[in-house]
Amino acid sequence: MKNIIFCTGNKNKINEMQSILGDEFKIEGKKIDIPEIQDVNVRTVVEKKLDYAIEKLQQPLIVEDTGLYIKNMNGFPGALVKFMLDKIKNNGISKLMGGSNATAVTVIGYYDGEKKHFFEGKKYGTISEKPKSMKKGFGWDPIFIPKMKDNNKTFSQMSIEDKNKISQRKAACHKFKASFSQI
Amino acid sequence: MKNIIFCTGNKNKINEMQSILGDEFKIEGKKIDIPEIQDVNVRTVVEKKLDYAIEKLQQPLIVEDTGLYIKNMNGFPGALVKFMLDKIKNNGISKLMGGSNATAVTVIGYYDGEKKHFFEGKKYGTISEKPKSMKKGFGWDPIFIPKMKDNNKTFSQMSIEDKNKISQRKAACHKFKASFSQI
Repeated sequence: MKNIIFCTGNKNKINEMQSILGDEFKIEGKKIDIPEIQDVNVRTVVEKKLDYAIEKLQQPLIVEDTGLYIKNMNGFPGALVKFMLDKIKNNGISKLMGGSNATAVTVIGYYDGEKKHFFEGKKYGTISEKPKSMKKGFGWDPIFIPKMKDNNKTFSQMSIEDKNKISQRKAACHKFKASFSQI
Repeated sequence: MKNIIFCTGNKNKINEMQSILGDEFKIEGKKIDIPEIQDVNVRTVVEKKLDYAIEKLQQPLIVEDTGLYIKNMNGFPGALVKFMLDKIKNNGISKLMGGSNATAVTVIGYYDGEKKHFFEGKKYGTISEKPKSMKKGFGWDPIFIPKMKDNNKTFSQMSIEDKNKISQRKAACHKFKASFSQI
């Protein structure tokens, strides 16, 4: 079993990552106060977070960030989606952007003790006209309908297992896992 | 004459501040690479920028940040407006939010060599249905109609002198100026 320190305060993200990576890995969440130097671009944010976490902890670790690029806003808000969500909620985003295509992106930044590595996962989809199943999932799960044959469910309408089979986080985690033995 | 170092790379801001503060002050722009720890809240951003600039330069200086709180987005994007503008331009913001009330806020952070001081200026207004006079002003000047008796002009449709008489930046600068002799 490989122990991995995951610098985040978001338990949902820890649980999802643990569930996706499976028993070979033991994810240990570690909340450190990372000043998030914000940007629309998820990769840029992760690069800065990783540098900061390395400086602070000086040991192997991962950080991640996830964003939602909404096509009808030319890619806004991307990694800034958390602020938008905080202000206008899923309901507000649906009202403004329901029907728009969108791309969900997760980037994992991994420091192996020597080098930095980045793994990006994407999921194309659309913004639903209204939030669905608000009590399940987290973040913008209630308004993101992942592109998949015959699917019209948002992430939050799916079981966690089903979401974790297709999500952008899964894609990023699998790249991380696949490369792990080669790092 | 008082010399003031203003940490910014934005020449428009330097010019406006010089013009508002007048001959008593000589503003010297200094571009340092401040990592902007972003937030919707302008004051929060300025506090972080100021701490960073003090650490870096260790001398009296000012920083500022300006944001646009759009009422129909419950105060979003605030200080994040620069990212929104970058992605969907004034045209996109007008299309989404034309007619909404909005508040423009400038916060100046001043370090006198010992203590930190903050000066906030606000201007209420509305978002225009379309951008006007795109070639004048800067940032979101073409879509912000400041609240003023019988006014339906955006900032960019006004002369710089007229804008500088009523803007949120003027309000912040005047508070700064007024307190300067007492600091």
